[in-house]
Amino acid sequence: MVDIATRVYNHNWKIDPIVRSLIDTDFYKLLMCQSILRNRPDTQVTFSLINRTTRIPLARLIDEGELREQLDHVRSLSLTRGESTWLRGNTFYGKRQMFSSGFMEWFETMKLPPYHLERVGDQYELTFEGSWPEVMLWEIPALAVLMELRSRAVLATMGKFELKVLYARAMTRLWEKIERLRKIDGLRIADFGTRRRHSFLWQDWCVQAMIEGLGSSFIGTSNCRIAMRRDIEAIGTNAHELPMVMAALADTDEELRQAPYRVLADWHEEHEGNLRIILPDTYGTEGFLAHAPDWLAGWTGIRIDSGDPSQGAETAIAWWKSRGEDPRDKLVIFSDGLDTDKIEELHARFAGRVKVSFGWGTLLTNDFRGFVADDGLAPFSLVCKAVSAHGRPTVKLSDNPNKAMGPAAEIKRYKRVFGVGEQAAQAVIV
Amino acid sequence: MVDIATRVYNHNWKIDPIVRSLIDTDFYKLLMCQSILRNRPDTQVTFSLINRTTRIPLARLIDEGELREQLDHVRSLSLTRGESTWLRGNTFYGKRQMFSSGFMEWFETMKLPPYHLERVGDQYELTFEGSWPEVMLWEIPALAVLMELRSRAVLATMGKFELKVLYARAMTRLWEKIERLRKIDGLRIADFGTRRRHSFLWQDWCVQAMIEGLGSSFIGTSNCRIAMRRDIEAIGTNAHELPMVMAALADTDEELRQAPYRVLADWHEEHEGNLRIILPDTYGTEGFLAHAPDWLAGWTGIRIDSGDPSQGAETAIAWWKSRGEDPRDKLVIFSDGLDTDKIEELHARFAGRVKVSFGWGTLLTNDFRGFVADDGLAPFSLVCKAVSAHGRPTVKLSDNPNKAMGPAAEIKRYKRVFGVGEQAAQAVIV
Repeated sequence: MVDIATRVYNHNWKIDPIVRSLIDTDFYKLLMCQSILRNRPDTQVTFSLINRTTRIPLARLIDEGELREQLDHVRSLSLTRGESTWLRGNTFYGKRQMFSSGFMEWFETMKLPPYHLERVGDQYELTFEGSWPEVMLWEIPALAVLMELRSRAVLATMGKFELKVLYARAMTRLWEKIERLRKIDGLRIADFGTRRRHSFLWQDWCVQAMIEGLGSSFIGTSNCRIAMRRDIEAIGTNAHELPMVMAALADTDEELRQAPYRVLADWHEEHEGNLRIILPDTYGTEGFLAHAPDWLAGWTGIRIDSGDPSQGAETAIAWWKSRGEDPRDKLVIFSDGLDTDKIEELHARFAGRVKVSFGWGTLLTNDFRGFVADDGLAPFSLVCKAVSAHGRPTVKLSDNPNKAMGPAAEIKRYKRVFGVGEQAAQAVIV
Repeated sequence: MVDIATRVYNHNWKIDPIVRSLIDTDFYKLLMCQSILRNRPDTQVTFSLINRTTRIPLARLIDEGELREQLDHVRSLSLTRGESTWLRGNTFYGKRQMFSSGFMEWFETMKLPPYHLERVGDQYELTFEGSWPEVMLWEIPALAVLMELRSRAVLATMGKFELKVLYARAMTRLWEKIERLRKIDGLRIADFGTRRRHSFLWQDWCVQAMIEGLGSSFIGTSNCRIAMRRDIEAIGTNAHELPMVMAALADTDEELRQAPYRVLADWHEEHEGNLRIILPDTYGTEGFLAHAPDWLAGWTGIRIDSGDPSQGAETAIAWWKSRGEDPRDKLVIFSDGLDTDKIEELHARFAGRVKVSFGWGTLLTNDFRGFVADDGLAPFSLVCKAVSAHGRPTVKLSDNPNKAMGPAAEIKRYKRVFGVGEQAAQAVIV
């Protein structure tokens, strides 16, 4: 029996919206948004989409009209009553009322600001300008829309059973990964794959498979909507945009040098426990830790998001020891370019020496490598970053020169200020 | 939107029936049934289920009550108006009104006769007694019920996502086979997998995948219900039960020697063209062809269903040549234990020398090998055969001693009468 009403209702959709909720975003965006709204609400920023995989001709694959429709749809969204209730009533990291009434009232009426879209050659220039707490909420939906429109463009050429088999292959591959991960004693792993997912439905499938396949080793998802829908933990802390924007606002080299610590000082006041996670690599991990104030050594852990992850963790362990901390009490979260091999390797090397945890991203939610001709569904490296604040360019160095961002002269200045020397280049997988 | 009515309706089913239609059976059963009804309607036969894979303890896996419910449900079925219309109105092998009015009137009111079920150790004894045209229609539904109940018993222990991944794996495996077969120029292949299928829905999926993946190389299915549902050709000719029963009825050695030819003489009168396919192996291919009347050499082709298939085809080619026929005008249908490797090999060897065609059975519709613990879903060798006629045991020799059936003394007699000497044993895969 076909449900006629459902079918007719579905035909009434003008488009099939990719992002259908303002909380179809990473939890840390909301945490950071609240912090920005409290501390720097008037900061004017520009965010920009950057396709680091230039061989993928996004503007040839994706129709501009469809892209605009999807982005316009995102702008039409506002927080629903149920989403607001979930954010207000939920316990995050063991804490109730993580989000203040002030933030929630602002968020309940917020709509995303306009976007600027232009085709330049085979790529799109997509930028967002305005106040930081609003503009920053574009990052995840913009990425998700671009990623999924690209998937749809490739899928549109396939037959019904070819499609069934495509997803069969993806499911089989994911389950084989889960079966391997299941063997790791004491594993703790979360889904961090929203931004570069194959599609929303596929991410949701991956999360459900992890729930069944990994049991308590699966600790949650960064995606608030999926966390709400599947009744699991929303996971996340803070990201590079905080030090990047604060650094861009610095008037002197000394202010610049202190900017990353000032960000974490604000965070220190607002959060405790598992939310006190250092992201040390924005301007080089070595220098950041060497010059860090002592109170940072008391934080719960560190997230390793660029460079050689083993080296990053060893650096953190040595640093904690040098500050009189016991690394076995500390949490190390690996979140860069993970897949099963690397997870096994890192867990084997660091379990017992520190508390290990993994934020598994693109190769969880978008591993369609090798499934179609010309590898047309392989994930690629798309980012959406703060590129300027109050008209000044932002800079990111990270522990991998291939991930560096910003004008060359500014990169040079930042390297000097933060004492960053030669860095080993790592291939950016996704 | 859940369709509440559908859900409530589904809850009203007392059981989930495995066989839901009298034409969920092989096309050749109906052809043979019509022939039997015309030529030998009063023959009393016994059919019996035989599990050749005794390490599979069917009676431990399958609940007797559930088995009875399913068999009782099959007995409750009668031909629907739409099924009757399809059989009456369809063109089979280019011929309209393949089924006579007399047969259709009989079939429209026919219900399957009672069954006898008894547990003996870890196996079931399941037998059917009565008039040949009725009893013979039990073969395929009985096998399909047992096969699918065994699948269900294993599937019942699995989680939701484990199940999704199981089918994902099966789909991926099938599609990889199809992708290989697609490369074979001039391939002609049909689904012969009803009797030992994993389940009805899975067979239906396999057929749809073949339709999309192989296009015109996929020439149809032996399953009438799926042929009707998917609007494709129903495929099939005749089987061992005709010579087996006729041989059992023979009163003298000479009558026995002639029995296989008398069966085909009846067939010769009833059918022409692509339905004139010799199944020569019931009592040894070599002897059968050597002593065959000349009119048989004029038939359209031969089906190779036991023994070494290459050798069988070479024997047929040599025979046709010896009778002055051009093998290039003849059809060779391979239907025994096929999978991709063997199909490729046989096609490469015989394409151009004869017209080649494949009836792909169990490893099309039930290749779940290696997917679960203890290989609990691997197909196994279950058959349902005529074991006696008018109280006399039937005998089958075939070209593989591992497929021989009947009392030892009778097998010895048949070997003498048909001049069958040493045979090379072949492992029975499925």
